[in-house]
Amino acid sequence: MIKRAKRVAVLSPVAWRTPPRHYGAWETVASNLTEGLVARGWAVTLFATRDSITRARLHAVIDRGYEEDPGADPKVAEYLHIAEAFEHAAEFDLIHSHYDFMALSYSRLIQTPVLTTIHGFSSPKIMPVYEKYRDGYYVSISDADRAPTLNYLATVYNGIDLSLYPFQDRAGHDLVFLGRIHPDKGVHLAIEVARLSGRRLIIAGIVQDEAYFHERIEPHLDGQTADYIGPVGVAGKNRLFAAASALLHLNTIPERFGLVLAEANAAGVPVVAMDLGSCREVVADGQTGFLVSTPGQAVQALGRLAEIDRRACRRRVEQRFSIASMVAAYERVYATIFELEESKCR
Amino acid sequence: MIKRAKRVAVLSPVAWRTPPRHYGAWETVASNLTEGLVARGWAVTLFATRDSITRARLHAVIDRGYEEDPGADPKVAEYLHIAEAFEHAAEFDLIHSHYDFMALSYSRLIQTPVLTTIHGFSSPKIMPVYEKYRDGYYVSISDADRAPTLNYLATVYNGIDLSLYPFQDRAGHDLVFLGRIHPDKGVHLAIEVARLSGRRLIIAGIVQDEAYFHERIEPHLDGQTADYIGPVGVAGKNRLFAAASALLHLNTIPERFGLVLAEANAAGVPVVAMDLGSCREVVADGQTGFLVSTPGQAVQALGRLAEIDRRACRRRVEQRFSIASMVAAYERVYATIFELEESKCR
Repeated sequence: MIKRAKRVAVLSPVAWRTPPRHYGAWETVASNLTEGLVARGWAVTLFATRDSITRARLHAVIDRGYEEDPGADPKVAEYLHIAEAFEHAAEFDLIHSHYDFMALSYSRLIQTPVLTTIHGFSSPKIMPVYEKYRDGYYVSISDADRAPTLNYLATVYNGIDLSLYPFQDRAGHDLVFLGRIHPDKGVHLAIEVARLSGRRLIIAGIVQDEAYFHERIEPHLDGQTADYIGPVGVAGKNRLFAAASALLHLNTIPERFGLVLAEANAAGVPVVAMDLGSCREVVADGQTGFLVSTPGQAVQALGRLAEIDRRACRRRVEQRFSIASMVAAYERVYATIFELEESKCR
Repeated sequence: MIKRAKRVAVLSPVAWRTPPRHYGAWETVASNLTEGLVARGWAVTLFATRDSITRARLHAVIDRGYEEDPGADPKVAEYLHIAEAFEHAAEFDLIHSHYDFMALSYSRLIQTPVLTTIHGFSSPKIMPVYEKYRDGYYVSISDADRAPTLNYLATVYNGIDLSLYPFQDRAGHDLVFLGRIHPDKGVHLAIEVARLSGRRLIIAGIVQDEAYFHERIEPHLDGQTADYIGPVGVAGKNRLFAAASALLHLNTIPERFGLVLAEANAAGVPVVAMDLGSCREVVADGQTGFLVSTPGQAVQALGRLAEIDRRACRRRVEQRFSIASMVAAYERVYATIFELEESKCR
């Protein structure tokens, strides 16, 4: 039973507006969660930049995201913003922080419980902070992204806005890669699969590693094996999904949480993904795509695409990777925290 | 009346060890103050790096200064270090922070009063933090370095260790410049004064602005007008003071607090300084040196050096710029804070 009268503060980063105009994955999650909680009747205060857009009560001391404000000092913005939320802690039953390790350092100075969604470990150097505050409440964004030395209340997958990715009934012919052009994302492996399977690969995304692009990708952009179309927005993604027989995601390092896999599945597009990190959690092997370990296995998987029920792909995303499922999962986490806190008082 | 049973936490930076091996002005002040307070019977806990050296109780969570530790993440070190002190706030009657604006952001989350020595405003961008926490206790390091929008309990001058700079009875013949080789420090003006007065200038210090050094300084290093001897330690400074008829400090921007002026005076050396910033507070015009506004006035001042009583120079430093005078001044500030806090409770 969720008590609807509970007051929740959502602490969003201030690198970008919430929701962000373009980039800003953490701000996106904070926004989707906040609006979802408001819709479900929670009393939510969003701590974010002053130009943020929300139906919750907005509490802001920083005018604009420091990444969008040439006059800003990120360190000053960060300290002022985080401290402000904690100074108002007594007004809330829970502070839900999306502000990495920095916010944790204030958590023992207040009475209000603090839930931290760990959106990823940017460096092993930040682990000592998470370890110091390990008696706090942590949520992971995938089972694969958990640190073995920490305790987690739950894994809550980031939810996507399903209305942005309408279901497409008919499969296209191309292969699609969507993501940063970087060796970690295995774009070169996707090209190899395209070459071996005789299917054309459309590559979309920002070039993050110029040398990699020029040496390993560009030579194959002949319009037959592969094409590069630059970064795309939501409309561009939907056009790609319409053209796709499958999304190829042959990442070479563990994926924290592959949002694009869920987006493709939402549109009904099967995913062929490397079995590394969280891919196994997003893709149901044999049902919404295939998990592989080599380009050769990926080519074989492409021969089995007819086995995939495109509606099952959509359904799985609705159940597990939608904003609604994310909000519901956080509601369960909040309920657990309130029960644990009450048991402390008894 | 100072109550000796009061427990004080001194929060030093963790950029360097406390005291620092070489550079580290703020860590030096924190160290001098801590050891001085211990000698006076206070119960002091020093929050600093684990390799720090102190007679106080050392509380450390960071092994080495992040500037001395290639494996360190400064941001992680800073957050862990500052939070640790505030998490132990209840053990202290006062937290005396030397940790800039960052520590302020924790100050409203605890009951213990926090005194912040503002060692300088690194940028106008940090002012919003000082303004937000303006109801806190601030100390300036010179009257000249005060921000007009803030309230200060006192100015407390940094104290130097007088035993490092023994009094030298007899004046030398040279002029001396000691400091960073940078246009702000007016080394070119000192050279002009040397040229006009026919006295040799010895320049010591690190070259911070290479172009300035090559264009404005190097052409004059003929061994007659000027000589450059590189950076010097304490022994080198004392040799320079022995050779000096006067220290020239013709800074072109306001000085926050000219420690080298006090060091020269401690050795009995008169100071000819630009009347900008805190120079007027350190040098007593006509008694321990001369304040000037132009190189021409500096040349005239050199003709009046015989008016300066070298013992008076030493005496003034003992009274105003020694560790003892700094500790005594902070004891008065602490007493004021304790009185103000008690009046709040009544």
